[in-house]
Parts: sequence; C-alpha cells; structure tokens
Amino acid sequence: MARNVQENPDMELRTICDIDVSSLERVQQRYPNVKCTSDFQDILRDKKIEAVIVATPVSTHYDLAFSALKAGKHVLVEKPITDSVKSAVELLELSEKVKRVLMVDHTYIYSPAVQMLKNIVLSGELGTMLYYDSVRINLGLFQHDINVIWDLAPHDISIMHYLIGKTPSLVSAHGARFMNHDLEGMAYVHLTFDDGLVAHFHVNWLAPVKIRKTIIGGSKKMVVYNDVEPTEKIKVYDKGIDVTTEESIFKTLIQYRTGDIQIPHFENREALSVEIEHFADCVKNSKFPYTDGYTGLQVVRVLEAAQESIRKEGQPVSLD
Amino acid sequence: MARNVQENPDMELRTICDIDVSSLERVQQRYPNVKCTSDFQDILRDKKIEAVIVATPVSTHYDLAFSALKAGKHVLVEKPITDSVKSAVELLELSEKVKRVLMVDHTYIYSPAVQMLKNIVLSGELGTMLYYDSVRINLGLFQHDINVIWDLAPHDISIMHYLIGKTPSLVSAHGARFMNHDLEGMAYVHLTFDDGLVAHFHVNWLAPVKIRKTIIGGSKKMVVYNDVEPTEKIKVYDKGIDVTTEESIFKTLIQYRTGDIQIPHFENREALSVEIEHFADCVKNSKFPYTDGYTGLQVVRVLEAAQESIRKEGQPVSLD
Amino acid sequence: MARNVQENPDMELRTICDIDVSSLERVQQRYPNVKCTSDFQDILRDKKIEAVIVATPVSTHYDLAFSALKAGKHVLVEKPITDSVKSAVELLELSEKVKRVLMVDHTYIYSPAVQMLKNIVLSGELGTMLYYDSVRINLGLFQHDINVIWDLAPHDISIMHYLIGKTPSLVSAHGARFMNHDLEGMAYVHLTFDDGLVAHFHVNWLAPVKIRKTIIGGSKKMVVYNDVEPTEKIKVYDKGIDVTTEESIFKTLIQYRTGDIQIPHFENREALSVEIEHFADCVKNSKFPYTDGYTGLQVVRVLEAAQESIRKEGQPVSLD
Amino acid sequence: MARNVQENPDMELRTICDIDVSSLERVQQRYPNVKCTSDFQDILRDKKIEAVIVATPVSTHYDLAFSALKAGKHVLVEKPITDSVKSAVELLELSEKVKRVLMVDHTYIYSPAVQMLKNIVLSGELGTMLYYDSVRINLGLFQHDINVIWDLAPHDISIMHYLIGKTPSLVSAHGARFMNHDLEGMAYVHLTFDDGLVAHFHVNWLAPVKIRKTIIGGSKKMVVYNDVEPTEKIKVYDKGIDVTTEESIFKTLIQYRTGDIQIPHFENREALSVEIEHFADCVKNSKFPYTDGYTGLQVVRVLEAAQESIRKEGQPVSLD
Repeated sequence: MARNVQENPDMELRTICDIDVSSLERVQQRYPNVKCTSDFQDILRDKKIEAVIVATPVSTHYDLAFSALKAGKHVLVEKPITDSVKSAVELLELSEKVKRVLMVDHTYIYSPAVQMLKNIVLSGELGTMLYYDSVRINLGLFQHDINVIWDLAPHDISIMHYLIGKTPSLVSAHGARFMNHDLEGMAYVHLTFDDGLVAHFHVNWLAPVKIRKTIIGGSKKMVVYNDVEPTEKIKVYDKGIDVTTEESIFKTLIQYRTGDIQIPHFENREALSVEIEHFADCVKNSKFPYTDGYTGLQVVRVLEAAQESIRKEGQPVSLD
Repeated sequence: MARNVQENPDMELRTICDIDVSSLERVQQRYPNVKCTSDFQDILRDKKIEAVIVATPVSTHYDLAFSALKAGKHVLVEKPITDSVKSAVELLELSEKVKRVLMVDHTYIYSPAVQMLKNIVLSGELGTMLYYDSVRINLGLFQHDINVIWDLAPHDISIMHYLIGKTPSLVSAHGARFMNHDLEGMAYVHLTFDDGLVAHFHVNWLAPVKIRKTIIGGSKKMVVYNDVEPTEKIKVYDKGIDVTTEESIFKTLIQYRTGDIQIPHFENREALSVEIEHFADCVKNSKFPYTDGYTGLQVVRVLEAAQESIRKEGQPVSLD
Repeated sequence: MARNVQENPDMELRTICDIDVSSLERVQQRYPNVKCTSDFQDILRDKKIEAVIVATPVSTHYDLAFSALKAGKHVLVEKPITDSVKSAVELLELSEKVKRVLMVDHTYIYSPAVQMLKNIVLSGELGTMLYYDSVRINLGLFQHDINVIWDLAPHDISIMHYLIGKTPSLVSAHGARFMNHDLEGMAYVHLTFDDGLVAHFHVNWLAPVKIRKTIIGGSKKMVVYNDVEPTEKIKVYDKGIDVTTEESIFKTLIQYRTGDIQIPHFENREALSVEIEHFADCVKNSKFPYTDGYTGLQVVRVLEAAQESIRKEGQPVSLD
Repeated sequence: MARNVQENPDMELRTICDIDVSSLERVQQRYPNVKCTSDFQDILRDKKIEAVIVATPVSTHYDLAFSALKAGKHVLVEKPITDSVKSAVELLELSEKVKRVLMVDHTYIYSPAVQMLKNIVLSGELGTMLYYDSVRINLGLFQHDINVIWDLAPHDISIMHYLIGKTPSLVSAHGARFMNHDLEGMAYVHLTFDDGLVAHFHVNWLAPVKIRKTIIGGSKKMVVYNDVEPTEKIKVYDKGIDVTTEESIFKTLIQYRTGDIQIPHFENREALSVEIEHFADCVKNSKFPYTDGYTGLQVVRVLEAAQESIRKEGQPVSLD
C-alpha cells in the first residue's frame, strides 16, 4: 500500500501509523522522508491529510474508518469493510452524510484479469450465466481474528458482485475447524440467486496445493479463470449443450457443442496500483468507487449469512 | 465388460443380451462364438450360466438383478446398485437368502490409484483424516434417467467408504438444472461424519474442462489424487500445521510444516480387469466382494439423502 | 493394424503372418475367422490378397516389401521404409515399375492434430516459417536393431516434410550411447534448409518424463503442438517481433507483439484408422498416398545423413 | 542489485553511476541518501569505496572491471565476465596480481534450486551423469550487443560447471538469425566431455512460451529442474534402465526401472541476496567466490567456441 501510494503521481505519502514499534522503525528506514507515528490521532489532526488507508485487523476497521470519516478524511479500508452488517451500514451512512469517499480494498476488482472477465461478461458471449464456481485454497495464512470465510470469500463475493451486479437470495455454508483451532479453516459457501444462477466457493487454509480457479458456466460459452497461471489466466471455451425436449426417452435429447478455446491477451498491471489510481481519481473528482461502501456492505451481508448457516449446520439463510 | 470377461482365464463369455437389435448385431460380429439374444429369459434359463453382469439403465437394475439372483446366478451390477434404498435392501436380503454373490461395479475401488490411496491411509502417515474434497467435472454425458449425483457421486462415495469404512451422519446437497433439462446437471454434496471429518463433492456434466481431483487433508500429511494425470496420479505432501494454544491473540499460534512431496509409483492395470478377476474369485470361493451389496446400499443411502436435501434447498438430512 | 483393417469397411482382413508361434496363437484367438500362418509365402501365393502390410523389424522391410510388390501386391510398410537410401530407392523404383501402391506408415501425418497443423501452415497465418523445434523423449522402448534416431526421428522428419514440402540441405547430429548399449539412446538432429529455415529434434529413450512437444516459430505467429495433452494439443500464439533497423545502437530496434492465443478445436479420430482408410482409397483408386515411397525415401535420406554426422562427431553432412 | 546491496547488513550502498541521466534521476529519487553520478571516475577516486559492481553492457565489462581492479577495488561483474577469452584471462590475471576479489554474477548458482541440485549430485544418488539437457526459451529480450548464446547460455554453462566441475572437450553450435536482425536469436549448443557426458542447450529469444527446463540423466536416477514452477521446481525420478548384454538379438536386453518420484523441499530465497551476501563474505574474508574469475573464464571459453562453431555451420570446435 505504502509503496503504491508513493509511486502514484497524484498522491503524497505523508504519514504512516503502526502500533508495532519495530515494524514502524523498518518502515521509517524505507521511507526516510515520511512521518511515522504510533498515534492515530496524529493523522486525524493533520489538516493536510485528505485521505486515510486503513490496513489493520478487521475488528478495528469500523472504529478507525469511522473516526477518519468524522475527521473529514476520505477512506480506503481493507476487505471486508467491517465485521458486521450493522457497522458496515453505519459506515456507509456516515460516508454519505460527510460526503467523503468510502472505498473498500477488494483488490481483485482492479486486476487486469477480472477486468477482462467483466468485458467478457458484458459482451454477452457467455449467454445466460448458469453457475460460478470458485476454489481458493492453499496452506496458510490462518488468521487470528477471522475465519477462512471472512478472509478469503470476500474475493469471490466481490468479483461475483462486480460481474453480475446482483445479490443472492439464499446462502448456505459448511465449515470445518482443525486441530483445536477455534476458527473455521475450511469452508464451502453456496449462493442461490432468484434467476436460478448458483455460486459456490471452496475456501481453505489447510490445502497442500495453491489453487485459485474460477469456472463460469454460461449457456453459450464457459470461462476458466486460473489466477495461479502467470500469463494464460483466462480461457474462454466455446462449449456447451443444446437441449431439445422430445417425448421419447430413448432419443438423444442433448447435443454437445465444442469449438475453439480463446486465451485473450491483456497487459499485466499490478492491481493495487490501479486501485490506488482509482481511489485518487474518486477523491479528486468526487466519484463513487467501483468498490464503494455499498459493495462492501453487500459482501458483509453474504459473509454474515454464511456464518449463520455454518452455525445451523448448513441450513440455507435468506438474505432478504 | 464383455472384453474383460472374455480375457479372464477363469470365465467364459457365454451369452450377451441386449434389446437394441443393431447393437446386438455389432456385438455378434465382434464375438462370433458367443450367443447373442434379446431375451433375458435365455440367460435365466441357461443352467450353465453361473454369473450375470447387469450393465443397463439404473431403473432396470433391480428387476434384472432380482430375477438373476432368483434363478440362482451370481450377480455383478453396475453402479449405483438400484435407484432406491428400499430396492437395494431387498436385493441385498435376497442375495443373502439365496447365498449368491451380489457385487456392485464401483470400478474405481479396483484401480491401482485407489489401491495406493488405501495403502497410504492404512499406513497412518496422514494422521487423522480431516477432510475429503473431490471435484469430478467435465462436459457430458448427460443421462436420461438419473441426475448428475446418481451418475458421478457413486464414485466418490464408494471411494470414501472404501478408504475410511464409515458412513456419514448428515448429508446436504445443492443442485442446478440447466436449460430446461429436468435433471440436475451440476451438484454439490456435503457429508458430515460423527468424528468431525467432512467430505464434499462437486459433480458436474456442464464444465468446460475435465477435472478428476481429490484432496485428502490429514493432520500430518495431505494427498492430492489427480486421476486425469496419466502417470503421476498421487502426490503425498508432507505439509500441515501445528497449533499451539496460547492465550495472547497477538502471538503466533500456528506453525506451518512443509517437507518433501512424494509421488509413489504403482503399476498401471485396467481397473475393470482387476474387478472381473475379483468377481471370479468371489464366485469360485464364496467370498464377499470389496464392493458388495452392503457397500452398494450405503452408497444409495447417501444418494437418496442428497436428493432429499436438494429438494429442501440444501437442508441437511440425517442418515440415521 | 489388424484391428483397424478389420474395422475398415473397404478391407477384409484375410491372413496374418508371424514367425513367433505363441504370438500367432493369441492372434488366432482374437480373430478366429482369419487365416494365421508363419509362412510369408502363403500371403504371396494367395491371389485374392491385394495388399500387404509389413509391420516387422526395420531390417526386414526391404525383403518383405520387395517380394510383396513383386507378387503384385500393394504395400503399406512401417516407418522407416527401409534401413538405407539404396534399398529405399530400389523399393520406390519397383513400385513404379509394377504400378502398385507403396505407402509408408508415417502415422502422425494422419492424426487430426497434424492435419490441423497443415491447415494452419497453409492458411499463411504463421508468416514465414523460421524454425521447427521438436522434443520427443520418454523412458523406453529401446530397440534392438535401430538407434533412437531411426526409431523416433522419422515422426518429426515426416511431419516437417508434410508441412513444408521441402528437403533440408545440411544435416548435423549428435548421439549418446548409454551403459554399454551399442546403439544411440539419445540424439539431437539439426537440419538446415536453403531458405534459412532450421529444424531441430531431440529424441531420447532415456528420459524421466514423456514429452512430445513441437514449437513452430513463424514471422507472424507461432504454434506449440503438445501431443501429450489429451484435448488442447495445438496452441496458436499471436506473438512475435518487429525489427526496425535504425543506425543508433541505443535506440529500441525490436518491438514485441503479444496478442490472443487460439486453441483450435478438431475431432479426435484414431490416426491409424484414417491411415488405413487412405490406404484403401489409394489401392482402389490408384492414387499416390500422402506418405508414399518418395516421402519414405526423403525420410531415410535424412536419417542416413544424421547417422553419418554422428560418426563424424557432429560435422554437417550435405544432402545434395 | 542496488536494492540487494542496500538490504545487506555488511554493505553500504555509497555511489550509483549511470550515463543515462533520466535513469540516474529515478534512482536518486528511490535512494535519496546515495550519491549518484554519471562519471565512473568518481567511484574510482573514492577511497572509501572498497567494492564495485559492474552491471553494464558486456562490451564495457573489461574496461570498467579492469580500471576498478587497478584502483584497488573488489569487483563483481555481470555475466558473461567479458566478451572474449583474451580479455577474461587478462582480468583474471590482474585480479590475482592486485589480490582483489573478482566475482562473476552467475546468479543461478546462488539460487536455492541449484544449491539443491548440487546436493543431489554430490549425494551420488544419480549414479554416473549421462546427459544434461536444458531448454531456456521465451519471447524477448533481444540484446543489442550480444547474441542469444552470450545472453542465455552462460546460465547453463555455469550451472553445469558448478554441478560437475569439468570442462567440455568439444563444442558444436547452430544458430539462426531472424528477420534481418544481425545477431543470432536462437541457438543450439552441444558439449561433449571426455568421459562421455554430453550437454545440450536450446536458447531462444523468439519462442511463444517461457520454458526453463533442465533434465539431468543419470545411470541410477534422473532429475527434472523446472525453474518456471513456483514451488515444485525439482523432481527426482527413480527411473532408469539396466542393460544385460546377451548375444541373441531376440532376447530382451534392457530392463526398465520405475520407482517413486521425490520433490525435495527447500526454502525459497532470492538468489541475488545470497549472492551479495557471498560477495561481502569473500571481500571481508579474502575468499574465492564460487563464481570467481576462473569460472567466468571457463564460461567464456565455451561461448567463444560455440560462436566459432556457428560460423563453421556446426563443426565441432575443440576446447583444448
């Protein structure tokens, strides 16, 4: 974050705050000309500071972002926006009241790969979107204050929300805790949408291999987005079925289509750099960010419902 | 099936029955010395026939297997054994009464890869088994009489049952139907076991890529079984975490272990050939097959519960 | 071969000859209605036999094919056509004299993947072909009578010849013999063409992994043909460079182009089946096969030159 | 380089020299406390500077390193050490005369993967090393002053030299120039050693895919080192052949061994950081670096011979 702010021509990295003193020292060495402090009030009081980036444990997001907005600062907060729907709503309302930008760091939205996915979806070439399946697993990093859903699922929920602009109606989830750890280290989340679309995320901190693979099934084409691939991240498959409903059960009702596969080229840019640029643009020109407080709230609504479903052993929870 | 029976030195391929006449003609050409008939009674009446293999649509399994057992034949029936728990129980009871072998064609159990998995699990090197996650997806083949769960999940349920010898207590499932097809073409099945083990299967007929990947998470080691790989199907990862529970939330509680990866070698034999050999052995020596009627019943119990959970939008269904 | 002939509607599998008696017995069991003999004269004398397929060790190709042609039979002989340029020329001349089809079993030419490669090359989309690089390695099967060049390089030489229709002017090769085996088990072959095109083959019987990968570099696009991939065998890369020659050495002279990657779809058919069909067509309609005796001769010319270059420690050998 | 020097606790980044003024300005911004100059004499005259790192075009290596050594500085020079054997010998002799460290930046030697390879070779588990085959290809970066051999082959030559400590006796090479570019953009280099070992490198700036794969064939085991893999870079295959020489040509002479595959774990550290640490250690404690001037000279001897072989259309050039 600090590096990307510093490299952005429209921003000036002015103050870095960290309550871990040794970490603050390392930062000071790297950025000798930046003020380093362990007192957040130093930031709030500094009239020259227009915007604050909150990159702290989730449980502190609400307090820090709230006081920054109160002090008239624009705020970019790491995902998830807060640890509850209630506090997310409050932040959102405050940001509207004080007319400041409230942006959530759903970084993937600013990656060239997800931008390309968005283009593909917008082009209509997939037909009707039928399903969205994502596997996001690896070994580590177990968090201390949030379980794996709150840590990893925001990526998938925000990408989905960005791609289709809809909110699910039902959320089910299953989680597993490992080896006396008191937080779920693995979970499956299943979303149902009113129009029949389904989405499913497998998030896991205790997997032997790193997988970051999303499959989007459409009625015309299908997409595989493999974020672990260094260059060929997105493949568009001209594949599908045509269903002809005849009465006789012995007639072939399903026809399979298989055509070429396309791997679209896009420039590889650091997503965080794009995001910081977008934040600067929103602040300067009073725009709403792509990942605004409202998006952040939608993500937390799904997370909270998933949490509740886990408690109920997988019973679906309504989002209305 | 026919080829493997013919190649087995302990068996003689005597009669092939098919109600599709053109298919029967092709078979006759390939096996000129084998009797071909479209009347199943020809098989039942032939005293010299000791064993019958039922490889027909699922809805016909019960009737054909039942009458074959009644006629004193040993029976090998394709998976799933029948289309309901009730009929599976009846078949099982009949087989016990007439003292004939009732075996289910859960082919994977006889594959060298699953045999190797069984050895790894038995060796105890994985520690406690924490989760079993399987993805079994590709484009096609949509079935006319059963949905994707009844078609593909029997593989995973039977492998799991073989590896751990336990039956789940809770089953949840979500399914999706595509493009006016009246059967689920995609589904997620989640199993919970009394000891905390969880299992999850993604089965899908409408996926752009073929994936056959199972991850088994253990407390000591983890395994990835990739059946699409031609030679390096199984990888054993010496990876995991050690959890030390300290009170302070800011101390590192989790330590990660990462060691070598082992790819065990095993001879590649056709699973069906091993299975037929096992069937012959069971018939000759009055043994219970690894995949006997009881195993087949356990599989159908899970399938039926998953079906019920889908109807209830994912609500967990108890297996007791 | 036998199976493919039997399945071809335009052919009748009449006689199989093998001097290995136990092998002949197995064959007889599989094809009960086919005459099996260990006397090749039985084939030559049989007036009803129109065509002979020679699938024997290379050193016997010449004698068997020669006598079959002499007896008025059409001949399909496994690759390489013979073990010397001299004998290949003689076969070719005899086939012209007796007006019989002489076809060489360069199977790859009939594979859908190589057919697709041919289409891509013909379309001109690659621009000028700059290089052809092939790696064809795995563990086994060491041959007893020919080294790895004579065993594996015919695939690459015939594919190249089919794709570009040109013969190289210079051949260099390096080989290595392993562990007292008296034949090269690994070799590198380098071809130079008059127009600047270069080709290079790495063939190896003692490699830990199976690789079948060909890269074709063109001035406009490039192709990777990975025959080990089950479905996505061919990838067309819209990649390359543009060279602008400026005087100053500090100016950027090279510009890189990177566009989409295309994976063309094609139906997967067994190459041997296509080949047998083509052979039948050539016999019936007096056509020249794609892989005729002349093609077979060109392949052996390169093989012989490569062999000579190995003897001379890699010195280039002229093909004129 | 600059970053790694700055992060090394035993070194102080004192002066950066660049004749490109705009580049110098960017560097000054990043390292505000470091002196930036476009006059190399500033470095030579500064008595407090003990060591100089030369990271410039190859044609300037000799002059800059020579004058630095003359001025009593220790020198680390990018690979290849110089552009000719003659100048490499002179540098080496000067470094011995002035008793200063002369180290060449063959970075791979300091990578954890190559260190692991060295351990595997030293352990003897591979048996006799039979061949070393490397493919090092991708699109770009075409150099202005050196061809692809001088750019990429130093990696393979230095790794080989490090692993086996021997110098080849014969060098052959083929090169191709593309699209009016006057330097080879693709080349094959073949090395023969007195004991029968062969090595082969395919280096290419105009390839559609990035490949960094080395296969080492041993009489007992074989290794694949795939540097593009993020984590599983090295695989050790317990594979090979046993040759039993019997007279009869129809008896099976070769037996194949296939055992487990091992993927050894090692920590991932930045090679350049290890290298800089080693340079500091050599300077402080008057040690010879692993990649000293002598190693650098051996690399250039092979490069020069390869260049000569290309001129002679692949004729082998003796290194004696």
